[in-house]
Amino acid sequence: MSDTAATAPLAGMRIVEVSSFVAVPLAGMTLGQLGAEVVRVDPIGGAADYHRWPLTEGGESIYWASLNKGKRSVAVDFRDPDAQALIADLVVEAGVLVTNVAGRDWLDFAALAARRPDLVHVQLVGRADGGTAVDYTVNAATGFPLASGPVDVAGPVNHLLPAWDVSAGLYVALAVLAAVHRRNTTGAGARIVVPLEDVALATIGNLGYLAEAQLGGAGRERIGTAVYGTFGTDVVTSDGVRFMLVALTPRHFRDLTELTGCTAAVAAVEAALGVDFRDEGTRFRHREVLSGLIRAWFREHTAAEAAAALAASSVLHERYRTFAEVAADPKVTANPMFARLDQPRIGPHLAPGLPMSVDGRHHTPRPAPANGDDTAAVLAEHLGLDAARIAELHSRGAVRVAAPTEVTGPA
Amino acid sequence: MSDTAATAPLAGMRIVEVSSFVAVPLAGMTLGQLGAEVVRVDPIGGAADYHRWPLTEGGESIYWASLNKGKRSVAVDFRDPDAQALIADLVVEAGVLVTNVAGRDWLDFAALAARRPDLVHVQLVGRADGGTAVDYTVNAATGFPLASGPVDVAGPVNHLLPAWDVSAGLYVALAVLAAVHRRNTTGAGARIVVPLEDVALATIGNLGYLAEAQLGGAGRERIGTAVYGTFGTDVVTSDGVRFMLVALTPRHFRDLTELTGCTAAVAAVEAALGVDFRDEGTRFRHREVLSGLIRAWFREHTAAEAAAALAASSVLHERYRTFAEVAADPKVTANPMFARLDQPRIGPHLAPGLPMSVDGRHHTPRPAPANGDDTAAVLAEHLGLDAARIAELHSRGAVRVAAPTEVTGPA
Repeated sequence: MSDTAATAPLAGMRIVEVSSFVAVPLAGMTLGQLGAEVVRVDPIGGAADYHRWPLTEGGESIYWASLNKGKRSVAVDFRDPDAQALIADLVVEAGVLVTNVAGRDWLDFAALAARRPDLVHVQLVGRADGGTAVDYTVNAATGFPLASGPVDVAGPVNHLLPAWDVSAGLYVALAVLAAVHRRNTTGAGARIVVPLEDVALATIGNLGYLAEAQLGGAGRERIGTAVYGTFGTDVVTSDGVRFMLVALTPRHFRDLTELTGCTAAVAAVEAALGVDFRDEGTRFRHREVLSGLIRAWFREHTAAEAAAALAASSVLHERYRTFAEVAADPKVTANPMFARLDQPRIGPHLAPGLPMSVDGRHHTPRPAPANGDDTAAVLAEHLGLDAARIAELHSRGAVRVAAPTEVTGPA
Repeated sequence: MSDTAATAPLAGMRIVEVSSFVAVPLAGMTLGQLGAEVVRVDPIGGAADYHRWPLTEGGESIYWASLNKGKRSVAVDFRDPDAQALIADLVVEAGVLVTNVAGRDWLDFAALAARRPDLVHVQLVGRADGGTAVDYTVNAATGFPLASGPVDVAGPVNHLLPAWDVSAGLYVALAVLAAVHRRNTTGAGARIVVPLEDVALATIGNLGYLAEAQLGGAGRERIGTAVYGTFGTDVVTSDGVRFMLVALTPRHFRDLTELTGCTAAVAAVEAALGVDFRDEGTRFRHREVLSGLIRAWFREHTAAEAAAALAASSVLHERYRTFAEVAADPKVTANPMFARLDQPRIGPHLAPGLPMSVDGRHHTPRPAPANGDDTAAVLAEHLGLDAARIAELHSRGAVRVAAPTEVTGPA
């Protein structure tokens, strides 16, 4: 069952987004998936992210379409004073702004809040001190690239997933809802600033890495595919398929040694070393010998045999997949979170809704707009501009009203 | 300036958390940092995460303390029917439950909602089909481990950051606020289920990986520290320090070639190949030759020289740091998001608040409780139990009231 506008949690909420790249677009899209109406305002022709890779053969951004599903698009000339005033009007009318744009007077909190004191203004910045930063630079300072990856690698191992952008986008969405909650309770507006770098630093603090280092911990060495403080390992089958295995509990681990026929060998090692593998820290300390014993069984069994044996056990496990494999897997194709999306300019594909069900229902993904698709409709509906005024603004280039012949390229 | 209870966005909201590991504890802590009162209810002696690594020399979990800051702790015997009823009473009284516990009748939505129809019940599960999963197994199926890491690595490269747990925790927090918003508007409760696996699948969809694969994209090869679709590279200085550099715009890239004295060489390559490096995709396609030209300058300059030159440019950059280095860095020690926290059992350290400022103020971190620290106070304040009843429950082991001599170990 899919959601309806009436029952969506944020039905009736209106949000203006002036953004680019990952974090704020994800924030806006997520609030839209929860039921808000999200108007993304961009420069005519699109912001810096409008042509970001991956692209279709026709040069359209799969990336942009994926991160801006279900929004309305207004395109204006950011240098035109009338257009700047229109953006401000839209923000004042909606009452909520999410943005990662800095240095634009007409988007500043003070100017907008002077017109609407209960404005919720949430801004993502690179660093709290105003410096610029992106996920891939922020990540370098977190400690993760020097502790991730195979044990024999010397240099940094960056993440491919822009994990800080994703987290920051979710914090921005959370900031909006927290501030709207307070506004509904007290009438107060809010100015909230979310620094991307602070999202990363808070997270490494929340996971204990910073306290561990401050309290004199030994530091973290590379551990490959092991899982710190418990037992995890990758294994490869006789037909070359890889699985990730995790044994968090004594039962998981007992099942794993039985499955792989090494219970007696593990017990012999345990006795000889005078240790107790029911303790997860002890399993971690002795991960190399334990992984060695366990991997041997997988090398002599096929992926099908391994999958069947693992499925019959309590062992936490998953087969490693490429992006292409997961895209074609029942995890996607038979998952009610995904629905066929006829995305203009990109093509039909299975697109995800929100990763949660609300009262048993999933959000149904809606297409991303093209730049300026909704300029005329939004200016009319939200600001009451008449057709003649919109046509005048369009004709002198202050705004761009999309027409069928105009939707695919920059002006 | 720090926050106060009165101005915190979620002041007055009360949440019961029955959880373990990362995602739901992070959700509860985050809602607490936004001003909610969060009561974590655990088995006597702590849940499965209470002794998770990293540990202090005394065996206390730095990890647990870091993910449970500012909560109240109630400890009860989950097998005792009276204790189960008390947990249900606490949930009904608070009106919001966040949990990753499954298979407990007394925490099921139906039973609780029968007593409080406007209950907000948010449950994290491993998979939508009820299967179990953890971050490190979910990640295997996402495609990232087979596309991350150095170009010459053959096997999977797992992330060390539990990125899916962190994202899932933030989605859980978001689900709570969205559902509370709807409840405040319509009076309706909500049952929300957030599958960890779906968080990962939605994210790879939102970032375009699944559509790219479905639409016949070429697949993703390992690209090391490069940044897909634009220009990024790591470099190493003459004194062995590594930096991450990103040039998103033509200006960034021009500054980078000028800084490294390779503008003429880059222009010569550009002319010879008949390409235009102002296009970021073109910079990505030719990343190896461009990285080669740029890295040469860094090999002949110290980290201090490189840092000064980069700081004077528009180039996005960051020095790679270990966890120990960032813990001692002004990014942490001079950051108003961090404050000294006198954490019982663990020791004083700089702990993060919420990665956002609200009206210019930062949340001040508060200590994590020990198991059962607040049992007596919460049962009295929230449920009106008198001292004799609490003492009786404690004496027969249905609940555990912490006393100074009891707070450090399991019962």
